[in-house]
Amino acid sequence: MKRHGQYTFATLLVFISIHFACNSPSQKEVQKKNGIASIDPLPSWSDGAAKKAIINYVKMVTDTAGGNFIPVPDRIATFDNDGTLWSEKPIYFQFFFALDRLKVIAADHPEWKNKQPYKAVLDNDMSTLMKQGEKGLLQIVMATHAGISTDEFESIVKQWLSTAKHPTKGRRYTELVYQPMIELIRYLQANQFKTFIVSGGGIEFMRPWVEQVYGIPKDQVVGSSVKTVFDYNNGHPVLKRLAAVDFIDDKEGKPVGINKFIGRKPVFACGNSDGDLQMLQWTASNSLKNLELYIHHTDSTREWSYDRQSAIGTLDKGLDEAQAKNWLLVDMKNDWKIIYPYEK
Amino acid sequence: MKRHGQYTFATLLVFISIHFACNSPSQKEVQKKNGIASIDPLPSWSDGAAKKAIINYVKMVTDTAGGNFIPVPDRIATFDNDGTLWSEKPIYFQFFFALDRLKVIAADHPEWKNKQPYKAVLDNDMSTLMKQGEKGLLQIVMATHAGISTDEFESIVKQWLSTAKHPTKGRRYTELVYQPMIELIRYLQANQFKTFIVSGGGIEFMRPWVEQVYGIPKDQVVGSSVKTVFDYNNGHPVLKRLAAVDFIDDKEGKPVGINKFIGRKPVFACGNSDGDLQMLQWTASNSLKNLELYIHHTDSTREWSYDRQSAIGTLDKGLDEAQAKNWLLVDMKNDWKIIYPYEK
Repeated sequence: MKRHGQYTFATLLVFISIHFACNSPSQKEVQKKNGIASIDPLPSWSDGAAKKAIINYVKMVTDTAGGNFIPVPDRIATFDNDGTLWSEKPIYFQFFFALDRLKVIAADHPEWKNKQPYKAVLDNDMSTLMKQGEKGLLQIVMATHAGISTDEFESIVKQWLSTAKHPTKGRRYTELVYQPMIELIRYLQANQFKTFIVSGGGIEFMRPWVEQVYGIPKDQVVGSSVKTVFDYNNGHPVLKRLAAVDFIDDKEGKPVGINKFIGRKPVFACGNSDGDLQMLQWTASNSLKNLELYIHHTDSTREWSYDRQSAIGTLDKGLDEAQAKNWLLVDMKNDWKIIYPYEK
Repeated sequence: MKRHGQYTFATLLVFISIHFACNSPSQKEVQKKNGIASIDPLPSWSDGAAKKAIINYVKMVTDTAGGNFIPVPDRIATFDNDGTLWSEKPIYFQFFFALDRLKVIAADHPEWKNKQPYKAVLDNDMSTLMKQGEKGLLQIVMATHAGISTDEFESIVKQWLSTAKHPTKGRRYTELVYQPMIELIRYLQANQFKTFIVSGGGIEFMRPWVEQVYGIPKDQVVGSSVKTVFDYNNGHPVLKRLAAVDFIDDKEGKPVGINKFIGRKPVFACGNSDGDLQMLQWTASNSLKNLELYIHHTDSTREWSYDRQSAIGTLDKGLDEAQAKNWLLVDMKNDWKIIYPYEK
C-alpha cells in the first residue's frame, strides 16, 4: 500500500505535470503571446491622431460583436502608388525609366538625334522636353514601353531597377518606398484585408517588383496598360506589347479599374493627388464603414513638400475635398517617424 | 534509497509520459491525420488515368524535395467557365439571361415588335434569331447588358438566377455546375493554388454568384466586358455600363486577359473548346511543370455529347491539339461518377 500510495502520488504528479505541460501555455508561449499583444503594428507612425484613427478603424470593422463589422471578402483596401507608397519627385520614377531606356535604344534610331521629343531626351534638355506636352510624353512612353514582348519588358524593368539611382537621393528607386505605408499594408493584411495597388503607373512596370517590395501579389495590381496581342510564334507563344494605350488608370479611370479588376467597392483607400480623388469618392460611397487616407507631402527635408501643384499634375482638388469631407490627412512630417526603410 | 529509487522510476515514467503526451501526436491527432490521408480529395472522379494524373501532378509540384516543385506564388490555375465548370447547352446560359431580360424590358421599346433581331426574341422564333448573325446577337447583348449601373446589373443577374430554370433540365442554372470540377478547385486551393476563372462570358455576369458556387473570389474572375464610365452623380457615384465592347476574353484574348488581370503565366489550365486553345497553349509554354485539362463532352445521357461542332462554336481545333500534345482529356462519361451536385 505504501508503494501503491507512492505510485499514486507519483501518478498524480505525472498527470499534473502533463496537464501543465500540454494544456497550459508554456512559458515561451506566454512570452510570445504577451509579446504579440504589446508589439506596435505601426512602429514608424508617431503616436497621434492619424495612427489612432487607423487602429480604431481596423479594430472596429474586425470586431464581430460591433455594429460596423465587415465580412472578410469585403475587406478591400486600395493604394495609389506614386506619392502614396513611394516618392514621385522630381517626376514619376517610371519617367526616369523611360528616359534611360530611350538613350539605350537610341542607337537603333539615328533619326532621333534631330527629332523631338527624342532629341530633347538625348540632349538632356529637360526644359525643351517639358514643352513637348502630353503628346510628346506619350511618344516617349510608347517608344520605350512597346514593340517588345511582355517577358522582355519585365527583364528590362528588373535590370533597370537593379542599377538605376535617383538623381538627388542617390538611392535605388525601390529604396524610396515609404516604410510607414509598408507597415500599414502588413497591418491590414494581418487583419484579413485584401490589399491592391491602384495606380496611374504602368501595370507591367509595377508587377516585377511590388511583390517583393510591398508584399502585394502581382494579380492585385491595377494600373495603366498598353494593348498586347498573342502571337503563337511557332509553338513558343509570346505576348507583344503594342504602341497603343489600352487603359489609363487615373482619375475617373480608377473606379473603372477597381470595378474591372477587383469587382468590389473598397472600404479603405489611400491616395495623394487629384488622380486619386474619384477612387476616394468611390470608396467613401461604400455603405460599409470605410476610411479614406490622403497623404499630405509636408516634409521638405526628408522627402518633398508640395500639396496643391506639382510638375506632374495638380493635387488641390483632392486636398480640398479631403479637408471638406474629413478624410484622414496624413502629415508626413509629423505623422511619420521615418520615411524610408533605410532610415531604420 | 528505496523511496528515492521508486521516485526515480516514477519520475522516469513522468518524463516518458510527458514525452509521449506532448511530442507524439495524440490518439485524436493520429485518427485525424489518418482520416485526412484517407479522405479522397476527388470523390466524384472515377479511379482512372485522369484522376491519377491530377493527383500525381499536384503531389509532384508541391513536393519541396522534388525537382518539379513550384513556389506558391507561381501556382496559378485558370478555368474556362462555359462547358468547363458548368453546362453550356443548348446555348450559353448567359444568352438565356439576355433573352429573358429582353422580354422584360420590351415594354419600354414598342418598336422592337417589328424590328429584328428583337422581334425574333419576342416571338420566340429561334430559327430567325440564329440567322441574325454575330451583329444581331451583339445587339441583343448590348440591349440587355448596358444602359444601367453596375449595381443595377448585379441585382438583375442575382434576381434572374434565383428564378430562371433551364429549358430541358428544369433546374436553376447554378445547379448545373460540375461537381467534379468544384472538387478539383477545392483540391487545388487546399494545395495553395490560386484559382481563377478565365471565361469568354461576361465578367459582371459571373461575379455575382461564382464566389458562393465555386468558392472563387470576385477579383479572381477574368471575362468579357462592356466599357463603364464613372459618374459622380452629385455625391452618389455610380459606374454606368455603356453599349460598347471593352474586352473579349476568348481565343487569343484569353492569354491577353490572363496577363492583364493575373500578370503570371498559369501552370494549370482547363478548357473545353477552341475558345480555350490559346490559354492552354500559353499554359503549356510555362517553363514550370504544367498540366492542361481538356473536358470532353461524352455523356449524352447525363449531360450532352459534342466535341467538334456545336451551335455556339467549334471545338475541333482544341480537341485535335489536346490529343496531339497529350493534354489530359477528361472523358465526362467515364471519368466522372456524377455530373451535377444534386446527383449526390
